[in-house]
Amino acid sequence: MANDIVANDPVTAALLVIGDEILSGRTKDKNIGHIAEYLTGIGIDLREVRVVPDMAEEIVAAVNALRARYTYLFTTGGIGPTHDDITADCIAQALGRGIDIDPRAVAMMRERYAEGELNEARLRMARIPEGADLIENPISKAPGFMLENVIVMAGVPSIMQAMLDAVAPRLRAGARMIVETIDAAGLAEGHYANGLAALAKAHEGVSLGSYPSFTGSGFRNQIVVRGRDAQAVAAAAEAVRALLASLAGDAAPI
Amino acid sequence: MANDIVANDPVTAALLVIGDEILSGRTKDKNIGHIAEYLTGIGIDLREVRVVPDMAEEIVAAVNALRARYTYLFTTGGIGPTHDDITADCIAQALGRGIDIDPRAVAMMRERYAEGELNEARLRMARIPEGADLIENPISKAPGFMLENVIVMAGVPSIMQAMLDAVAPRLRAGARMIVETIDAAGLAEGHYANGLAALAKAHEGVSLGSYPSFTGSGFRNQIVVRGRDAQAVAAAAEAVRALLASLAGDAAPI
Repeated sequence: MANDIVANDPVTAALLVIGDEILSGRTKDKNIGHIAEYLTGIGIDLREVRVVPDMAEEIVAAVNALRARYTYLFTTGGIGPTHDDITADCIAQALGRGIDIDPRAVAMMRERYAEGELNEARLRMARIPEGADLIENPISKAPGFMLENVIVMAGVPSIMQAMLDAVAPRLRAGARMIVETIDAAGLAEGHYANGLAALAKAHEGVSLGSYPSFTGSGFRNQIVVRGRDAQAVAAAAEAVRALLASLAGDAAPI
Repeated sequence: MANDIVANDPVTAALLVIGDEILSGRTKDKNIGHIAEYLTGIGIDLREVRVVPDMAEEIVAAVNALRARYTYLFTTGGIGPTHDDITADCIAQALGRGIDIDPRAVAMMRERYAEGELNEARLRMARIPEGADLIENPISKAPGFMLENVIVMAGVPSIMQAMLDAVAPRLRAGARMIVETIDAAGLAEGHYANGLAALAKAHEGVSLGSYPSFTGSGFRNQIVVRGRDAQAVAAAAEAVRALLASLAGDAAPI
């Protein structure tokens, strides 16, 4: 029974995206959406995302604020070989650990780099804070790592995705969120909003969201019902369908 | 001269993305990249982004942390007609203002909605904190607003983009960032990282970033030189080109 109680505790996470290039708009982030969907799929609630520049004091402050607040903190970016790659050092600083070239990381990198190619810059990628577990990188070999509840991954999407796959089995997963999406079939948000608000109040433990989207030719509203109790989600979804069926459409989209 | 000093002060910004749907991965954010690129283009430095759920205490705390720290705070999302649209009320709370249905906003919405269509839910979209300037919404009429240094915009990308166009002329713009992008032409990051670090130290006031990207067929590294002084950027870019020309490639991408 104690196990059940632990399993029902929400498992939460934050994501810290590190990199000037995201804030300047040069690189369009593709990791937030992937990680959000992935964590939802394994029952971890992503509760907050921050994007910060390649500045040590900003990274350290964000790491400490977020790791204290959530079950897990994921980071992306800043673990390459160049001078602006300072994430590993910042994690060591934030967690009060030493950091040095890790022979396990060097061994992984030897699979890719010949002896002469493992120069000083590339060895920066083998700098790992003490006590960290490595996260395998099947694509370019230089690993990510997990230290306490902080999971440090690359910024290049294909590498980040491989690291997320590698680390996921080590994480405590929560009860999976059950989601039903209901198409509002031409009804405007402003038309069903009052009814939906009443249903949101009546169905505790279930969240009801309404999401308009515009396509080239018009709009489409969807209502999303989310919760961890299958019966409660089904009951709320049924009530939403009954509400929509009771309303006649009008012309406005919102 | 005093004007020159003000104009050379960096103008900074944060972006707060509000919405459960981004954190669950249901909706993939398209606004961060657009706003980042747009602000860079008008000389405003985006320094931080946060994504928070539709929870009043989270929104209020983030608004107060970010508006105190940066010249401007932009928000997206949470200004529609449904019960989960609580941004305007949270801004009023964070800034200690009253909030009520604003006749100017109602007048704008009358262009779209017939008398009978402006029901209680839709009138929620006309709730504007006292003292705010409205931001026109040519697409669906319900306005955004600017209050002190906080700019509140819709989450639907097409509407957000129109609001950003509308509000931009009212903002203090900074000196435009000058950017040169240099293709590393097949050289690996680990090969030029040491040289680049030395150049980054030697060229103060200019930032040098190295960005790998992987395509289906291979990798491509680019070096980006950024700064506000055209001569300093040109000199640093020239030095980067000379560095790259002095190096022979090797096989590894990073």
